[in-house]
Amino acid sequence: MHRASQWYLLYQEHLRMYSATTKIRVRYGETDQMGFLYYGFYALYYEVGRAEAIRDLGLTYKELEEMGVMMPVVEMHAHYYRPALYDDLITVKTIVKELQDAPKIQFHSELYNEKGELLNKGVTTLVFVDAKEKKKVSMPQQLKNCLQPYFEKEN
Amino acid sequence: MHRASQWYLLYQEHLRMYSATTKIRVRYGETDQMGFLYYGFYALYYEVGRAEAIRDLGLTYKELEEMGVMMPVVEMHAHYYRPALYDDLITVKTIVKELQDAPKIQFHSELYNEKGELLNKGVTTLVFVDAKEKKKVSMPQQLKNCLQPYFEKEN
Amino acid sequence: MHRASQWYLLYQEHLRMYSATTKIRVRYGETDQMGFLYYGFYALYYEVGRAEAIRDLGLTYKELEEMGVMMPVVEMHAHYYRPALYDDLITVKTIVKELQDAPKIQFHSELYNEKGELLNKGVTTLVFVDAKEKKKVSMPQQLKNCLQPYFEKEN
Amino acid sequence: MHRASQWYLLYQEHLRMYSATTKIRVRYGETDQMGFLYYGFYALYYEVGRAEAIRDLGLTYKELEEMGVMMPVVEMHAHYYRPALYDDLITVKTIVKELQDAPKIQFHSELYNEKGELLNKGVTTLVFVDAKEKKKVSMPQQLKNCLQPYFEKEN
Repeated sequence: MHRASQWYLLYQEHLRMYSATTKIRVRYGETDQMGFLYYGFYALYYEVGRAEAIRDLGLTYKELEEMGVMMPVVEMHAHYYRPALYDDLITVKTIVKELQDAPKIQFHSELYNEKGELLNKGVTTLVFVDAKEKKKVSMPQQLKNCLQPYFEKEN
Repeated sequence: MHRASQWYLLYQEHLRMYSATTKIRVRYGETDQMGFLYYGFYALYYEVGRAEAIRDLGLTYKELEEMGVMMPVVEMHAHYYRPALYDDLITVKTIVKELQDAPKIQFHSELYNEKGELLNKGVTTLVFVDAKEKKKVSMPQQLKNCLQPYFEKEN
Repeated sequence: MHRASQWYLLYQEHLRMYSATTKIRVRYGETDQMGFLYYGFYALYYEVGRAEAIRDLGLTYKELEEMGVMMPVVEMHAHYYRPALYDDLITVKTIVKELQDAPKIQFHSELYNEKGELLNKGVTTLVFVDAKEKKKVSMPQQLKNCLQPYFEKEN
Repeated sequence: MHRASQWYLLYQEHLRMYSATTKIRVRYGETDQMGFLYYGFYALYYEVGRAEAIRDLGLTYKELEEMGVMMPVVEMHAHYYRPALYDDLITVKTIVKELQDAPKIQFHSELYNEKGELLNKGVTTLVFVDAKEKKKVSMPQQLKNCLQPYFEKEN
C-alpha cells in the first residue's frame, strides 16, 4: 500500500469517533485542604461527561436504565496533570474511540481549565448488565443506533 | 406536689432516652479548602451515628429496609460551633429523646473532638415509609420493641 | 395608619430582597439506594446556589476569599418535601431576605424540579471571618455595595 | 545460580513489602441508585487505607503535611470486580510493594467484603511536593525510616 493511502486511513480512523463536551464548575465542597479538587471527585466529572455525551446523542442514561440496562463501571484509570481549583469552570471532553462488539463501552475523558490547560485524563469502562437477569448483555440497540453513524467507514 | 418529687420526675425524665456513641475519623476528601470538614458532610456523620445507634439496639437499618421500610429524612437542623479538622477522631453521640406515636423518629447528634470540645449539634427527623405502598407507616414493631425499654416509666 | 398603606408597606417589604436562580442536574453519584438525591448532598446545591447568587451580583465568593474573608456556615436548616431524582434538572432559587448589621448573612434556598414542584427548602447562615485574625468581621464592603440597592427603601 | 536460590530470592522479594489493613463500613450516602457503593467513592476508601497504613508505621499523613510535604495523587487505577453494598464492612488492605528512589510512592489497595470476596483493586501513585516551593522532593526521611525495615535484604 502506498504511504499516502496509509496516512489517509489513519486520518479516517481519527475521524471515526464520537466526542462531546460539557462544562462543570468546581464546588467548594469538592475541594480538599490542599485547595484542589479532591482526586476522588473526578469520577463524578467523568460521570457527568458521559451522561451529557449520551444526551447529545438524543438518548439519556436514565432512559437506558428504564429500559432495564444498568451500566456499572468495571475499570477506571485517571491521570492528574494539574490541579483543578475552586470555582474553575472545567471543560469535560468525553470521547468514544471505538464501537466494540463486546458487552462494554469505553469512555475517554479529558478535563481542561479556562486557560485550555489539560488537567486530567481518565478512561472508564462500563459493562451493560440486564437489571433483572443480572447478566452482561450487548450494547442496547438504541445506543448502538445513535453511535453507529460516527463509526462508519466511508467508501 | 412537693418540690423534691418534681425534681425526681425531671431526673426520671432525663433517664428516659436512648443514646449511643460511635467514632469517625475525618477523611482528607471530606475537608474543604478552608481546611475544615465541609459543612455538607456532617449529614454523613449523623447518618453513621444513627446507623450505629440502631445497631447497638440489636437491629440494623439495613434489616429495617429489607423488611420493606424506608426512612427518608424530612428535616435536618445543624449548628456548627467549631470546625472538625482532617484526621480528627470525632465522637458522634446519637440520642433519641422521645418515642413518638407519629410515623417518624427524631435523632439528636452531638459531635465532639478528641479534646472533648463540642463541634456540632444536629437534629434529623426521619419518617417511616412502606417501600411498596409509598405511604407513611408507624414505627416498625421490631424497632419499637428495642427502644421501648429505654422509655419506660418506673413505678 | 390606614389599612391600604400597611399592605403597601408589606408589598414594599416583599420587594426588598435579593434573589437569583441557577440550575443543577442530579448526578448518579449523588443518588442513594432509595433512588433519591441523598439528603446530605443538598448542602452542595445550596452552596452552588449561593455562589451563583453572588456571581450574579458581579462578585465571586472566590474573590471574597482572596480578599481575606472566609465564610464558614454556622447554621443550616433543611426541609425535604419531595425527593429529587437522578438526572432531574433542579432549579435552585437563592434569596437574601435582609441585610443585617451583624457579621453574618443568611441565604434561603428553594429547590424545584422541572414540573415546578417544590422539593426542598433550606436556610444557611454564614459568618464573615478574617482569615488571618480568625475573627468575625462585618460584611465586606464590596458585597454590601452590591446588595444594598436591593434593600433600599423607596420614598 | 541454582534454581532453589532463585525461588528463595523470589520468596524474599515477596517478603519485602509493607502492608496494613483497616475496616470501613459502607455509608448510605455512598451508595447509588443501583444499590452499590458508587464507583467514585472507592478513592476515599483507598485514602483511608493509605492514611491508616502510614499511622500503623507510627507516623501520620497529617504530620507529614505539617512538616511541609504535600502528597497529591498523580495516577489512580481501579478495577471493580464485585459491588460493595450498603452496610458492608469492607476490609481495605494497603500494600507498598517497593521503596523507590523517585519522588513518589505507590500504594496498592485491595478491598474485601465480610465473606472474604475480593471486590476491588486499586493502585494510587502520589508524589511528594514541598508545600512552599511547590517542587517535587524525595520521600521525607521520617517516612523512609519507617518503611526501610520492611524492604531490607537479609544476609
